[in-house]
Amino acid sequence: MAADDRLADLEHRLGIVEDVLAIRNLQHAYGYYLDKCLYDEVVDLFAEDGQVIFIGGVYKGKTGAARLYTGRFRSAFAGGVNGPARGRLLDHPQLQDIVHVSPDRRTGYARFRTLMQAGTHESAGEPRQWWEGGLYENTYVAEDGIWKIKILFYRPFWHATFERGWAYTPAAFVPNASVVFPEDPYGPDELLTDPPELWPDTTTFPFHYRHPVTGEEV
Amino acid sequence: MAADDRLADLEHRLGIVEDVLAIRNLQHAYGYYLDKCLYDEVVDLFAEDGQVIFIGGVYKGKTGAARLYTGRFRSAFAGGVNGPARGRLLDHPQLQDIVHVSPDRRTGYARFRTLMQAGTHESAGEPRQWWEGGLYENTYVAEDGIWKIKILFYRPFWHATFERGWAYTPAAFVPNASVVFPEDPYGPDELLTDPPELWPDTTTFPFHYRHPVTGEEV
Amino acid sequence: MAADDRLADLEHRLGIVEDVLAIRNLQHAYGYYLDKCLYDEVVDLFAEDGQVIFIGGVYKGKTGAARLYTGRFRSAFAGGVNGPARGRLLDHPQLQDIVHVSPDRRTGYARFRTLMQAGTHESAGEPRQWWEGGLYENTYVAEDGIWKIKILFYRPFWHATFERGWAYTPAAFVPNASVVFPEDPYGPDELLTDPPELWPDTTTFPFHYRHPVTGEEV
Repeated sequence: MAADDRLADLEHRLGIVEDVLAIRNLQHAYGYYLDKCLYDEVVDLFAEDGQVIFIGGVYKGKTGAARLYTGRFRSAFAGGVNGPARGRLLDHPQLQDIVHVSPDRRTGYARFRTLMQAGTHESAGEPRQWWEGGLYENTYVAEDGIWKIKILFYRPFWHATFERGWAYTPAAFVPNASVVFPEDPYGPDELLTDPPELWPDTTTFPFHYRHPVTGEEV
Repeated sequence: MAADDRLADLEHRLGIVEDVLAIRNLQHAYGYYLDKCLYDEVVDLFAEDGQVIFIGGVYKGKTGAARLYTGRFRSAFAGGVNGPARGRLLDHPQLQDIVHVSPDRRTGYARFRTLMQAGTHESAGEPRQWWEGGLYENTYVAEDGIWKIKILFYRPFWHATFERGWAYTPAAFVPNASVVFPEDPYGPDELLTDPPELWPDTTTFPFHYRHPVTGEEV
Repeated sequence: MAADDRLADLEHRLGIVEDVLAIRNLQHAYGYYLDKCLYDEVVDLFAEDGQVIFIGGVYKGKTGAARLYTGRFRSAFAGGVNGPARGRLLDHPQLQDIVHVSPDRRTGYARFRTLMQAGTHESAGEPRQWWEGGLYENTYVAEDGIWKIKILFYRPFWHATFERGWAYTPAAFVPNASVVFPEDPYGPDELLTDPPELWPDTTTFPFHYRHPVTGEEV
């Protein structure tokens, strides 16, 4: 290969590696903001035409994402404030990334896992505490060299109260969305026609990537 | 350094970085398949002459790995099906990678941690639920540019029932393998002569890497 | 851009990527050593003028770090030995890294999360068991091409006994340091003037990085 082609090849491949690391940082930042109810910062991670898919609902555009985060979650978890509330735990780790970037370096895809610790301390209200395990299969877009969230598809797979555990989770611990916006002022724009059921039901969340050895769709 | 040497140096170093990321993806994919009892996909991550070392047994070759995953685990956890069973939780995160690649880019080494949530929901059988913490020290091989698992050495370090915790784990919560194949149709090919004991015993799982600052063996 | 400039640009950018991966490995190694009470190895990860900031105290220099790790922790957790004690669990995962490196490649910054499992098995003493969630905001320095810890700032955010959980954590579960060295032979060199309070209090641990999309300080 001529030196010039080798340079171009290196530039492209190194660019992909930098993209992968940037997408990890973006999603990890998402998790750290979510921990602390910094919902303004969460919404700013999305592209204008981004969307969120969550427990059976689709929230469209940054406006839709804002309805979920700075509307519903801020109201439910943070007393209307952009920041953490005393006695409220919402740690939302971002783990086990598998990130891929399209050859044109404009689109990214990633799978992440979370293992959440959530609840309210007895000194701050009705005591509640639970574990939540879930997966993300997200799409990202690079706009003017800045990676943003295009589709955040989060599927909580199981919940467990701290007291009883996942062997005794009540059915529909977190019910799927059923009322859309504006009837529900914090509701999604659309409902999924066939929303995944929660634990103890279990399905496989489709993988954005092929099997790393066989190259086959899984 | 001449331009040509600089190019060759960049190509080599970037190749190592790409290898590190590919090995992470491979092991992370392993964890996601294991979550969902996709044991066919797990076995396909191994090289033909790969092996698994697990609770005192050595499973040799892809055939040995198949005996463990598509034999023993599929029978125990997934009712004989390649996929998840309702009410069965087996989340197996892959965390805290330290990956190194040999200078010839043909062999990789990695340490990973898991923190597993496992059990059966009361609606799906006898309710059981436990935590498991463990470490991996694995070896990988690149064949025709594709990274595969060469040696998967998994050591569960502790178990804890959800109800009682790690302060009260019964001794030998998961006993070491004691019967080999074919006497045990799902057994290992060999037993380790000096298998590590489980919690509350504790030993240090040797590190594949030297101390990052002193450069000494630990 | 001329070929020579392109080469220099690639060398710099690839160097940054290698630094990011080296810093991850360094911090992940820290976690693995901590698991097993390998406190000598922990202390050797620090620069000579490094420091540790932990529950209200500042431990200055490798000497200060040694007072904390090979002094206080080894005495409290490992019976004076450099290595793990039977029946003592101290798993300290390192998760969700966000790493940045200065343009001159001499200073690194990283945020990490931990979710610790700790305690003593009933066969090894008074049974105790707890979860701990915390964050790191660390600074690293490259000396002669080797990355070392310059400032390790660890903030445990919450504790939860395995029995009761984070909804019922007693106040000041781990009290802030109040006595300095040498009055406390394992004490810090200085106290923070305004130490962060533990759960159920909650504050945001400042981020070393700007918002990845807006570029603003958070």
